[in-house]
Amino acid sequence: MKLNIAVLAGDGIGPEVTAQSIKVLKAIALEFDHSFNFKYAPVGAVAIDETGDPLPEATLELCKNSDALLFGAIGDPKYDNDPSAKVRPEQGLLALRKSLGLFANIRPVKAYDALLSKSPLKKDIIKGTDISIYRELTGGIYFGKKELSEDGNTASDLCEYSRNEIERIAHLAFKAAQSRRKKLTLIDKANVLESSRLWRKVVKEVATNYKDIELDFLFVDNAAMQMILNPKQFDVILTENMFGDIISDEASVIGGSIGLLASASVGDKYAMFEPIHGSYPQATNKGIANPIASILSAAMLLDHFDLNDEADLIRTAVDKSLALHITTPDLNTKYDNITTTKVGDFIADFI
Amino acid sequence: MKLNIAVLAGDGIGPEVTAQSIKVLKAIALEFDHSFNFKYAPVGAVAIDETGDPLPEATLELCKNSDALLFGAIGDPKYDNDPSAKVRPEQGLLALRKSLGLFANIRPVKAYDALLSKSPLKKDIIKGTDISIYRELTGGIYFGKKELSEDGNTASDLCEYSRNEIERIAHLAFKAAQSRRKKLTLIDKANVLESSRLWRKVVKEVATNYKDIELDFLFVDNAAMQMILNPKQFDVILTENMFGDIISDEASVIGGSIGLLASASVGDKYAMFEPIHGSYPQATNKGIANPIASILSAAMLLDHFDLNDEADLIRTAVDKSLALHITTPDLNTKYDNITTTKVGDFIADFI
Ligand SMILES: CC(C)[C@H](C(=O)O)[C@@H](O)C(=O)O
Ligand SMILES: CC(C)[C@H](C(=O)O)[C@@H](O)C(=O)O
Repeated sequence: MKLNIAVLAGDGIGPEVTAQSIKVLKAIALEFDHSFNFKYAPVGAVAIDETGDPLPEATLELCKNSDALLFGAIGDPKYDNDPSAKVRPEQGLLALRKSLGLFANIRPVKAYDALLSKSPLKKDIIKGTDISIYRELTGGIYFGKKELSEDGNTASDLCEYSRNEIERIAHLAFKAAQSRRKKLTLIDKANVLESSRLWRKVVKEVATNYKDIELDFLFVDNAAMQMILNPKQFDVILTENMFGDIISDEASVIGGSIGLLASASVGDKYAMFEPIHGSYPQATNKGIANPIASILSAAMLLDHFDLNDEADLIRTAVDKSLALHITTPDLNTKYDNITTTKVGDFIADFI
Repeated sequence: MKLNIAVLAGDGIGPEVTAQSIKVLKAIALEFDHSFNFKYAPVGAVAIDETGDPLPEATLELCKNSDALLFGAIGDPKYDNDPSAKVRPEQGLLALRKSLGLFANIRPVKAYDALLSKSPLKKDIIKGTDISIYRELTGGIYFGKKELSEDGNTASDLCEYSRNEIERIAHLAFKAAQSRRKKLTLIDKANVLESSRLWRKVVKEVATNYKDIELDFLFVDNAAMQMILNPKQFDVILTENMFGDIISDEASVIGGSIGLLASASVGDKYAMFEPIHGSYPQATNKGIANPIASILSAAMLLDHFDLNDEADLIRTAVDKSLALHITTPDLNTKYDNITTTKVGDFIADFI
């Protein structure tokens, strides 16, 4: 297969982890006789530095002319504490999601047997956990109208959803549940929010097309608790943009490190693959960033093109690296000198 | 001291747990020669059944003529799955908070030594945790304009904050930090939300009055993760309404049961005390509801009137009940027949 892959490595540890997944994809191409063609473009804080724009026109063009996107990370602390900054790196990521119509963000959360002891949660709580989170990605309060009053003393954000935005991701989530354990949990705050009540109504309607799926509902506050008390109760989770952001980051504690969590963001035409961790500026260029989330994102990219054997081989290689303690310091209690690059090398060599 | 206390027991397990805290307050009155006068009024689903209104005028009147409010719980599943219900029990609680100006909800989270093993988190992660969460309670998306389009296909909620709403709770939180470990963490999503940027700006300004306090900032997604990875890093947490709802429920896993978490909701004139757990309909009238959150809320009530010895005695009694396994089934692995009432009796007798 021939694939044109746009690489948007972004900020902080983005470039170093993405370099490892590219290495791994190249090994796959060699082994399975594919041709993967990588093209690079700036996004985020680095793009602001170069062009003044967190998502330059040329970057977006490249994405639209590619078969898939590999994304690194975005964000720079110099913007976080400046409430009056006009341009911010995160706008690049949000604009990318919106422009490419990437409405569904899929985040698998698994407890790896080799890593059970690394989690802050007790083993018997997490062992066997296997969740797929469907987070709506182009609507809600992130994209609603933002206002700051003239005098700067009142600020607002609008959380808005329409039926169609809910339906399209709901169908994806129900279908995913059909090929899994046939359970779907909608997380909302329908006892207070109008937008949540619309979610609940529309999802119940969509559910009539998937009678084999057990549907239940949790308020987001309760869900944040249940995720820790009993994560095994979840199979597919469906939720709106911001709740998905919070709940999936929280769920990352189950795997023992956020450095393991991959994600796919898909729409009708485009698909992007990225680790859920951020730019982690404190770790940049120290060789300690865990590349596995990015590498597993590359595996999700292959799955997206039905290259399942290839994707499985990557996952087997990752399991092997975990079992042999070929991991970065966030997970390693045995060796203290395994760098980002070494993990990438091991996985590519294994392939 | 003479106190007129309005009791709003509400729905589900509300009445049975509140009955225990009243019993305990009566024991305190006897022991310390106070006169506590209890008056009862309906709120929530029971009030809808009686009057059609989740917060009847007479209930609000009673509250305004009392020195403090003891609140039980609110919510009934028959409303949760009916997205088109016009009247809901939760509106009663929200209206009460708003009408009485209860803008600060204070939720202490502690790891009890006697219960370390009950938490889904590992002992060494939680031991020593002692957090005080300041959740803004009368602003933000819960109270912003809600809209449902004519055709029912678009719904929205507005999250709005103004400087003054942020300042007043920020001052309370900084003062609390001064009498604690001198650290305050603001939780927001300032990389995306305009309202969060206002929070960050105003809190930084307020901080200039409290130079002895270390101030830091966490994005809410990261905070949801940090709460589990390393809860001991937190002293006072300050946050807006919905983030506070989610993060404090999540934090309840640290204590081993949400049935332990008390809260105080205070404003310039009124103060209300309530367990953070909900109405827990499945447990109603089974004698299994944990009354400790309500009893500890009563202790917070006493603290509010500077009756600190009285409050401490309640807390000592609670510690004793936990140490002796006189607890409801959510916490008890030793005895299986300790009911809600028995826990209340033990604590009242101890006093
Ligand atoms: C960087 C930020 C805008 C982003 C988000 O909140 O969506 C990130 O936290 C994520 O989850 O992908
Ligand atoms: C019942 C509900 C409206 C309420 C809230 O979300 O504020 C509850 O969850 C709480 O935290 O007190």
